[in-house]
Amino acid sequence: MPRRVRATVEYDGTDFAGFQIQRSGIRTVQGELEAALARLSDGVRRAVDGAGRTDTGVHASGQVIAFTYAGPADDLELETALNGLLPPDLAVRGVRRASPEFHPRRAARYREYRYTVWNGPRSPLRERQALGVRVPLDVAAMARAGQAFIGRHDFSAFGKVVGDRTPIRTVHAVRVRRTGALVTIDVRADAFLRGMVRRIVAVLLEVGRGAMTEDEIREALAARIPARNGAAAPARGLCLRRVALGRGRAETLDDRNVTETDEGR
Amino acid sequence: MPRRVRATVEYDGTDFAGFQIQRSGIRTVQGELEAALARLSDGVRRAVDGAGRTDTGVHASGQVIAFTYAGPADDLELETALNGLLPPDLAVRGVRRASPEFHPRRAARYREYRYTVWNGPRSPLRERQALGVRVPLDVAAMARAGQAFIGRHDFSAFGKVVGDRTPIRTVHAVRVRRTGALVTIDVRADAFLRGMVRRIVAVLLEVGRGAMTEDEIREALAARIPARNGAAAPARGLCLRRVALGRGRAETLDDRNVTETDEGR
Repeated sequence: MPRRVRATVEYDGTDFAGFQIQRSGIRTVQGELEAALARLSDGVRRAVDGAGRTDTGVHASGQVIAFTYAGPADDLELETALNGLLPPDLAVRGVRRASPEFHPRRAARYREYRYTVWNGPRSPLRERQALGVRVPLDVAAMARAGQAFIGRHDFSAFGKVVGDRTPIRTVHAVRVRRTGALVTIDVRADAFLRGMVRRIVAVLLEVGRGAMTEDEIREALAARIPARNGAAAPARGLCLRRVALGRGRAETLDDRNVTETDEGR
Repeated sequence: MPRRVRATVEYDGTDFAGFQIQRSGIRTVQGELEAALARLSDGVRRAVDGAGRTDTGVHASGQVIAFTYAGPADDLELETALNGLLPPDLAVRGVRRASPEFHPRRAARYREYRYTVWNGPRSPLRERQALGVRVPLDVAAMARAGQAFIGRHDFSAFGKVVGDRTPIRTVHAVRVRRTGALVTIDVRADAFLRGMVRRIVAVLLEVGRGAMTEDEIREALAARIPARNGAAAPARGLCLRRVALGRGRAETLDDRNVTETDEGR
């Protein structure tokens, strides 16, 4: 009897051409997951759905997927078997049964991304998961400017609308913090336009360098004209940390170091 | 007029066959540094000396090097020029003039290594810089057992003696700590035998799993017979964080997140 299964997925996005499956020969997260799953399902290939289509080079510690599985393994056996087949830069955890109609994109109440900046001398050990910025950033100014994004806005100036969908999104929280040379920018929204976090980060970095003001951000947002020609921060600093499912809890940004998927039950 | 220069070096050791230069075609930290320096010195190749010969796959955030430089660049220009030539997984910082006879290995008062364990579900984002261990580790037992190494001992059971040198080393401190799923093992000694930290970590992990006792460690040390057939923890969890130079300060393990080289002046 086939059952619907969901899981949390973590990946180092460096060597993936994003989440979404593409033509064969292009290495994607979805492609690797579907291939591993097919090997556990007598070669029958089924779709793996994800909550967020992360771009090329973007990481995830809390992506959520779902798929239909018809084999004999229980949840824990399935998780172990999948991890045994997946490459070192991709893993699943928290495999469990979901309701038959569960789809992570539709079930997602909000998504939370973290952008990591190393605001110090070049650091090879952080090279894969942070953007290096040498000039000292004014984190307090960035934190203030980040508030301009909060609320329900037409984000046309800060992302691509795919298909005929609305460019309106609701940003719940933007938090900018420094710990030594480490600067993190957390952004939470009900959903994001394509490239939206990286464009928000790009202008916040301009503010941090003293090259842009909060007013300019508000103007770009209101006029729906891309600021700085739509510049986006590099993918390697970005990580999808959390997909909150189901009904709400208190809407505060997650403070845990390792973000698990909100169970929302 | 040639001058002696020293610098701190950070590298992601994953794609290096260790620090020490080998025959051509083998990628080493020393080889990359000497090649970059030669390009800044009209092709004249000079030796780059390091404080510690880290093995294949071992990282460093605080390696110390020294070399002789005869070009026109001042310290800051030299640092910028070197970083412009070095690959993304290798960088120098803190380039400055040293006394003509300065040699980092001889000047090193002690070295501090950190071994990082991810004691949780498989984590691709930590794969390059930590060892994943699924079974819960008893960190308190590991911390107690680590004290067996402290002091002046013949470490023949825990490392290879290179050439005709003495196997006697003095371990100053061993600290095992847990923060969530992250377990770190810091070891500081005047110097280390080859593979010594990774063999110490291997037995501490056995203790953490409940498969070995502190008494067995003391016996192996006293009898100079390798415990567990000389098993060593994998290189990817290990990082040379600090090389203390010059005369002493208080001998406490470094608590900073990012360890700079102790100036010791």
